[in-house]
Amino acid sequence: MQKPTLPKGTRDFGPEQMRKRLFIFDTIRQTFQRFGFQPLETPSMENLSVLTGKYGEEGDQLLFKILNSGDFAAGLTDEDLQAGSKKLTPKIAEKGLRYDLTVPFARYVVMNRGTLTLPFKRYQMQPVWRGDRPAKGRYREFYQCDADVVGTDSLLCEAEIVLMVHEVFRNLGVIDFTLKINNRKILAGIAEVIGVPGQEGTLSVAIDKLDKIGREKVLDELRERGFSDDSIANLEPMFNLAGKSISQVLSQLKTWLDSSETAIRGVSELEQTIQLVDQYGLVDSQVELDPTLARGLSYYTGAIFEVKANGVSIGSVSGGGRYDNLTGAFGVPGLSGVGISFGVDRIYDVMDELNLFPASAGQGTQVLVVPFDTEARSVALPLLNRLRSAGLSAETYPDMAKIKKMLDYANAKAIPYVVLIGSEEVQTGMLTLKNMVTGEQQKLDADTIVTRIGA
Amino acid sequence: MQKPTLPKGTRDFGPEQMRKRLFIFDTIRQTFQRFGFQPLETPSMENLSVLTGKYGEEGDQLLFKILNSGDFAAGLTDEDLQAGSKKLTPKIAEKGLRYDLTVPFARYVVMNRGTLTLPFKRYQMQPVWRGDRPAKGRYREFYQCDADVVGTDSLLCEAEIVLMVHEVFRNLGVIDFTLKINNRKILAGIAEVIGVPGQEGTLSVAIDKLDKIGREKVLDELRERGFSDDSIANLEPMFNLAGKSISQVLSQLKTWLDSSETAIRGVSELEQTIQLVDQYGLVDSQVELDPTLARGLSYYTGAIFEVKANGVSIGSVSGGGRYDNLTGAFGVPGLSGVGISFGVDRIYDVMDELNLFPASAGQGTQVLVVPFDTEARSVALPLLNRLRSAGLSAETYPDMAKIKKMLDYANAKAIPYVVLIGSEEVQTGMLTLKNMVTGEQQKLDADTIVTRIGA
Repeated sequence: MQKPTLPKGTRDFGPEQMRKRLFIFDTIRQTFQRFGFQPLETPSMENLSVLTGKYGEEGDQLLFKILNSGDFAAGLTDEDLQAGSKKLTPKIAEKGLRYDLTVPFARYVVMNRGTLTLPFKRYQMQPVWRGDRPAKGRYREFYQCDADVVGTDSLLCEAEIVLMVHEVFRNLGVIDFTLKINNRKILAGIAEVIGVPGQEGTLSVAIDKLDKIGREKVLDELRERGFSDDSIANLEPMFNLAGKSISQVLSQLKTWLDSSETAIRGVSELEQTIQLVDQYGLVDSQVELDPTLARGLSYYTGAIFEVKANGVSIGSVSGGGRYDNLTGAFGVPGLSGVGISFGVDRIYDVMDELNLFPASAGQGTQVLVVPFDTEARSVALPLLNRLRSAGLSAETYPDMAKIKKMLDYANAKAIPYVVLIGSEEVQTGMLTLKNMVTGEQQKLDADTIVTRIGA
Repeated sequence: MQKPTLPKGTRDFGPEQMRKRLFIFDTIRQTFQRFGFQPLETPSMENLSVLTGKYGEEGDQLLFKILNSGDFAAGLTDEDLQAGSKKLTPKIAEKGLRYDLTVPFARYVVMNRGTLTLPFKRYQMQPVWRGDRPAKGRYREFYQCDADVVGTDSLLCEAEIVLMVHEVFRNLGVIDFTLKINNRKILAGIAEVIGVPGQEGTLSVAIDKLDKIGREKVLDELRERGFSDDSIANLEPMFNLAGKSISQVLSQLKTWLDSSETAIRGVSELEQTIQLVDQYGLVDSQVELDPTLARGLSYYTGAIFEVKANGVSIGSVSGGGRYDNLTGAFGVPGLSGVGISFGVDRIYDVMDELNLFPASAGQGTQVLVVPFDTEARSVALPLLNRLRSAGLSAETYPDMAKIKKMLDYANAKAIPYVVLIGSEEVQTGMLTLKNMVTGEQQKLDADTIVTRIGA
């Protein structure tokens, strides 16, 4: 018989990994909730009419499509069958798997706009699927954790996102990170000022690679894409802002981009956002203003955010921004919003590499109760009950086995405490509590054991 | 533009539903963990070679299949294309969506058996997909919450499941339920004793409908399936056990099924399980022994469990049993286990119908901070910070709007407290706390507000 395998690009998460992942999920969820974001879940499948055309041509190709149920080929003509994959697909598959959480959110808003209270703040933590070529850190199924507020253009929402990013990472124990912010209007203004108005898209795509390929290659790319030497020379001030304080950057941008109304609006939005953040009294702000921050997605129209953990070479762990037109693709125009997305897989990698998971995040069963014989169960089973009632994770070795085997089981599962119950223990009521880490043993009564382990 | 729709049989879960669902998930997860079950997650997609043939022919048809990525039709011959859906499917789809959590669990155990510590206790809470015809209470995407222990045949595991079922429902607040238990060996013994040895499968299928179609129709069905009048007459004692105590049922079964070794083993297993449950000191046991309980799945070989909530006509909310051969289909024989599955959708329906959700389960944002003007933000924003640091869910209305509009927002979102901050409040530091339920207003300082709302 063939050994079973996993589809490529997918993963099982065993107990230890899962406990750590749950720590991340719980932390993000709690923080979202504290900021007043409300939970939403949408189906894994969406109609392809909802998904197609929303992620560009490449995205369409990466969508996983679901074969229609039943006799999907009935009614197909020879012509249909021989028309090739692209034309055949819509005839045999009308559903696809969720590609991100934004399009389903937009679909939900459109379908429920009659009953939604605006501004609507929702968070969503669910897997998404992409038929990308699997690689290190790139999977075909992975989780996104998004929080968005739509129906308002108040910059207070941007400030709240800055606050929330700090909260999430601090609650996770990732203290050393950088939150870069920028504003798309500044990029648009730069394009104006250097003489390529409207070409901020091309500019963004190139600048987005600054970290990876360096300044010279970015400029080469712009030259190839038709930017004049003058335009490129005019870009100079952009590269001289690194390492400066937020107020320095803001004042230099005001001077440089003075002639662009759009840029000045972007600068002012950033300035107000920073002021609002200050009003909250944010301690140890990790915010950095980076006018070269572009982020690929073309639908951002205002603030852009990106978070990287310092001390590891792992890509961004969080990102987002403001968009003007969440629901336009579904015929409902004008809904502005701002959102942030946390990448659980990368956050996991960061925390794993930097050893940031608290011990409790990896902890499974806290105590193994070991009766030496069936007699001893009369003491062991009620004790299990009591340990669990006290909120502890407790189990017993179910078979009558040699003591060594049961202790091996405790060690293999990294259970820190074992309670040993033999005939003496049954008679005296004094049970043996063994600390599996130190090896220390003590005779204690059941009450003391419950409080000791719970402490 | 066409209005977007949901694929049939799928659902969005908005904030209120989600909060209640999360209450169910959290409660089940915590209880699983307290009993020493460890979390596992498997991919949504499995290779069809893993899924096919595991759920019977009907199940195979209900599997959602995923169209291969890229140019799936390349290389197909005309013959392939025209062979019809059934023969074409394996050539264009090699993956399918998870149909239950048991087969992926078995696959995981087989793939990781070199490193797993046995007995292995895992829980898994993930959605599954079935291309069933949608109906009331039947969806194409729904969650399963399973806990299983494999690698032991100790009846202590059955007892633990009985305990855990009680814990889960009590922690949910579903006090009035019935946990029916039976043993497949008893059903096998009945088949022997009434003269149709080995036909307990047919017997089970018919008896399974007892609740729905009544005794006479069950007997009709057995007659149709070739059971003799003698056999059917011999079934009589089975119908005379309802409403009797566990010990009465056990003793009548012992007499009736005395001639079947298998049955007597089943009776003894049940007896021992009940004794073990008693040893734990389970208070207010809801266990009922029902020798007519069959449950459809043919892979059960020992104990069978089924839970129904009393006072509502909603099907079983939980079920499970012991199986002998979890991994046989993957060429690894002999792994015995016992498991229990909780149906979140039905539990939700029960709790909703009986009004059992605690108020906290539906609660979103706890307090809305309302600054009347931008000045007031200097007080409002730090207050938001403090409320959140105290673990409260707090938000502000982001736009400068009329007070009525902001209070309407609080009411629409069922936010119980609002803090109003105008110029007087900024000057005096005494803020207005409004209870949105009673309408009561009080002037309090920030400290008092934080502790008052947190109480």
